[in-house]
Amino acid sequence: MIVRNAWYVAGWAHELSTTPLARRICNDPIVLFRTEEGEVVAMLDACSHRGAPLSRGAVVKCGIRCNYHGLVFNKEGVCVDIPGQDNIPRKARLRVYPLHEKDNMVWIWMGDAEKADPADILDYPIHNDPVNWPTRYEMAPAKSGYLLLVDNLLDATHLAYVHPDSVGGTSPDVHFKAEMDVQRTKDGVRSERTMKNSPAPPAYTNCVPFTGPVDRWQEFDFIAPAVVLQYSGAVLAGESRKTSQQQRFDMRLFHALTPETDTTSFYFWSASNGHAKNDMSATDLIVEEITKAIVEDKAMVEAQQERLSELGEDWLVDNRSDGVRLLMRQAVERMAKEAQEA
Amino acid sequence: MIVRNAWYVAGWAHELSTTPLARRICNDPIVLFRTEEGEVVAMLDACSHRGAPLSRGAVVKCGIRCNYHGLVFNKEGVCVDIPGQDNIPRKARLRVYPLHEKDNMVWIWMGDAEKADPADILDYPIHNDPVNWPTRYEMAPAKSGYLLLVDNLLDATHLAYVHPDSVGGTSPDVHFKAEMDVQRTKDGVRSERTMKNSPAPPAYTNCVPFTGPVDRWQEFDFIAPAVVLQYSGAVLAGESRKTSQQQRFDMRLFHALTPETDTTSFYFWSASNGHAKNDMSATDLIVEEITKAIVEDKAMVEAQQERLSELGEDWLVDNRSDGVRLLMRQAVERMAKEAQEA
Amino acid sequence: MIVRNAWYVAGWAHELSTTPLARRICNDPIVLFRTEEGEVVAMLDACSHRGAPLSRGAVVKCGIRCNYHGLVFNKEGVCVDIPGQDNIPRKARLRVYPLHEKDNMVWIWMGDAEKADPADILDYPIHNDPVNWPTRYEMAPAKSGYLLLVDNLLDATHLAYVHPDSVGGTSPDVHFKAEMDVQRTKDGVRSERTMKNSPAPPAYTNCVPFTGPVDRWQEFDFIAPAVVLQYSGAVLAGESRKTSQQQRFDMRLFHALTPETDTTSFYFWSASNGHAKNDMSATDLIVEEITKAIVEDKAMVEAQQERLSELGEDWLVDNRSDGVRLLMRQAVERMAKEAQEA
Repeated sequence: MIVRNAWYVAGWAHELSTTPLARRICNDPIVLFRTEEGEVVAMLDACSHRGAPLSRGAVVKCGIRCNYHGLVFNKEGVCVDIPGQDNIPRKARLRVYPLHEKDNMVWIWMGDAEKADPADILDYPIHNDPVNWPTRYEMAPAKSGYLLLVDNLLDATHLAYVHPDSVGGTSPDVHFKAEMDVQRTKDGVRSERTMKNSPAPPAYTNCVPFTGPVDRWQEFDFIAPAVVLQYSGAVLAGESRKTSQQQRFDMRLFHALTPETDTTSFYFWSASNGHAKNDMSATDLIVEEITKAIVEDKAMVEAQQERLSELGEDWLVDNRSDGVRLLMRQAVERMAKEAQEA
Repeated sequence: MIVRNAWYVAGWAHELSTTPLARRICNDPIVLFRTEEGEVVAMLDACSHRGAPLSRGAVVKCGIRCNYHGLVFNKEGVCVDIPGQDNIPRKARLRVYPLHEKDNMVWIWMGDAEKADPADILDYPIHNDPVNWPTRYEMAPAKSGYLLLVDNLLDATHLAYVHPDSVGGTSPDVHFKAEMDVQRTKDGVRSERTMKNSPAPPAYTNCVPFTGPVDRWQEFDFIAPAVVLQYSGAVLAGESRKTSQQQRFDMRLFHALTPETDTTSFYFWSASNGHAKNDMSATDLIVEEITKAIVEDKAMVEAQQERLSELGEDWLVDNRSDGVRLLMRQAVERMAKEAQEA
Repeated sequence: MIVRNAWYVAGWAHELSTTPLARRICNDPIVLFRTEEGEVVAMLDACSHRGAPLSRGAVVKCGIRCNYHGLVFNKEGVCVDIPGQDNIPRKARLRVYPLHEKDNMVWIWMGDAEKADPADILDYPIHNDPVNWPTRYEMAPAKSGYLLLVDNLLDATHLAYVHPDSVGGTSPDVHFKAEMDVQRTKDGVRSERTMKNSPAPPAYTNCVPFTGPVDRWQEFDFIAPAVVLQYSGAVLAGESRKTSQQQRFDMRLFHALTPETDTTSFYFWSASNGHAKNDMSATDLIVEEITKAIVEDKAMVEAQQERLSELGEDWLVDNRSDGVRLLMRQAVERMAKEAQEA
């Protein structure tokens, strides 16, 4: 289920430039670019003349030029130049999609333009604080629907099975017995998991040389329809999470799962380093470890998508650990319903 | 036409182990494995929780564990463990398919489980007689429906066209003028072909250094829906097939054509060596020659499948040499009808 | 829209030989070959016995033999030999398609055979005049419908956008301001473009060392449904196109766009050299330059086809420069209508 009246991450801010970028979002073929003034634009990626993709074109003074017969469309999608003729038919215009640049990301609204309010976009100030939170920005295309990837993030009981050698560690019990605090939020659901006195998983010890078991926390904030903010970390068991600075693992992950089609997605994620802010190699290490985990997740979720595409979902039986995931799904359904009623 | 109430070869016995094997059979995605006690199991390859393939999981003490969230299913397909919760919903169970291990093969029943009777599975004692019949086991995936491969086996007039350099030889007449003895059998059809005083084809002379023309025989036993037992051989022309041991070519081929989908198959075949039982390299030579022939058959039959998928079969015109093939098709149709009536 | 009652180029004459050639035309799988007497034949590429492609077979004395079971079909598509049996069923025959060899090309008629009149095939004597018009013959498969390729040829305003470094040059105005003379013809439309005192594009200067601006001409003769005859050239500005022989670029291009399927085509083209007839390397140079242009065209048109397959064409808005293209489309539609009425 794709909700169109919603903001999705269309790209990292640095991905948009005066070189047009073709990206399919919510099944629509879109060209993303920056005007010469630096403004971001999203437009249907098909010229109104003969359908050629504008992403094969070029950004020019007044907008983007189709490189088939030279038509130019401004940032409102209106054709402003048809070489070789003076009058421009009013129908020569293309759908533009509301875009908003914020926190190093470009957000797109795929539904009714008049309902698009940038004030509804979540805040993620960490992306604007490179001094305290050195950050790297990544993207992985995924052959699964976006909700399966959100499911994956919100049911952490998969960690010891899918990620024994990276972020999970080998003990399922650590995850099943985690203290859980779950709350609905205005836009989704928030869960806090605490795993006291537990072995640090390989991804953590590869980043920080823990000398013993740790107290570990994972916070997941789901904001419908497609973002998960994750705050994970660990300190030596018994130390204070708030104050201890020795042997501290501390990262923020931003996950945005943007539908490409009904069964494929873009997995945008950033990793911000809270424990060694003066050491960029520490951020690189986090990225290396999280990349492993995302490769592992994708392998499982893409295989799951194949089965669900074939067999449907009606026959499936939920677990107790699906609670957070189901609250997430409810939030998305509520959002879809509201969009229809409005 | 796929008959589901029937036994098919799902794999060679040695293919099933405690490492799960994913194989689609009669369009169903299936996971095949052995329990720690060595029992063979076939189960729908999709966890009842979230649809993840169990073939990405692991065999554990009580069955197979999904490596997404750790659910365990026993060999009856019943979920026996959901980590993190005590009660297990009754709906948490997966279809299991009757399996039976016999003669180094694992047979699967894709239809109504209550009709599955292992006593209906054919006997092939040669697979249990490695001293007298040294044997090698092979499998080739084929991009054609299984019946086109059975057709191919039962109309030997293709040999000089498809296999001039391997099992056929260059003279079509040798095959068209073969003495034929055809009989319906309880489960299919049996044909015996005799080619007296004929040139030995390359596949034979590569195995046995014949010094002159041969008397050659080929026996094909089709057992519906999907097995052909072949006994082929040759002795020097005029020698006795029963007793002559000099310049003797003598092999048994077991062919099992298992539907993967409507238009793809698994071609399981074994080759057993009757003329040089103490020489494993003689068996290897047979396999080398038969492999050539199967590559040649597949190229033709896969091209045929493409045409039939596009053009249908209604417009085709049978030949006289289709007799055996048509009796085979009748046997399969009879079987399908009986399955419906019962 | 594919018109079947029409002649299409099925291949260059030299492509057809006693080695069968498989080629799909207007969605039909066809085998093309020459009899031992040199006559060209086009037949459904599927044996009437079991559907195997005849293109995997061999040309024999009386026609073409299927290499599955040896059936032979004569050049009328009638089965004349079924090895191993005397009577041949009347139904054992295959559709043959009218073929006509002319001007180094083999033309095929995909519709009602009784309406096929070779007198309707256009004349292209240049292919028969290698002394005055040394020629090379090429073919490029294209992932677009044939009409999009004809569109492309008939709207030359794309040249400066798609081909700045080859046949277009970098000035769009040269093309938009070209003098145009457009006339409907009996079978299509003819346009003449003249660009006086303009820079020679790279493709021209790579062939002829022009020392200044040129007077340039391009003539396009569209003959429905799928041929464009092009005559392009240039002389130094102010020189006479008719008589000047110094610094003269002069080529004839034959374009035949043959539908393979609704959305794929064969782009047959020949290039004939009129300015350096005694220098085969001059012809090679032309081919090199035109090949660049066709690679550029294909990239754009194949991308366009993807969009049109997804979005349809109803929403598109024509340009003034579409005039020739639209007359072309009208001619094809008229042809389709006549074929229906007749």
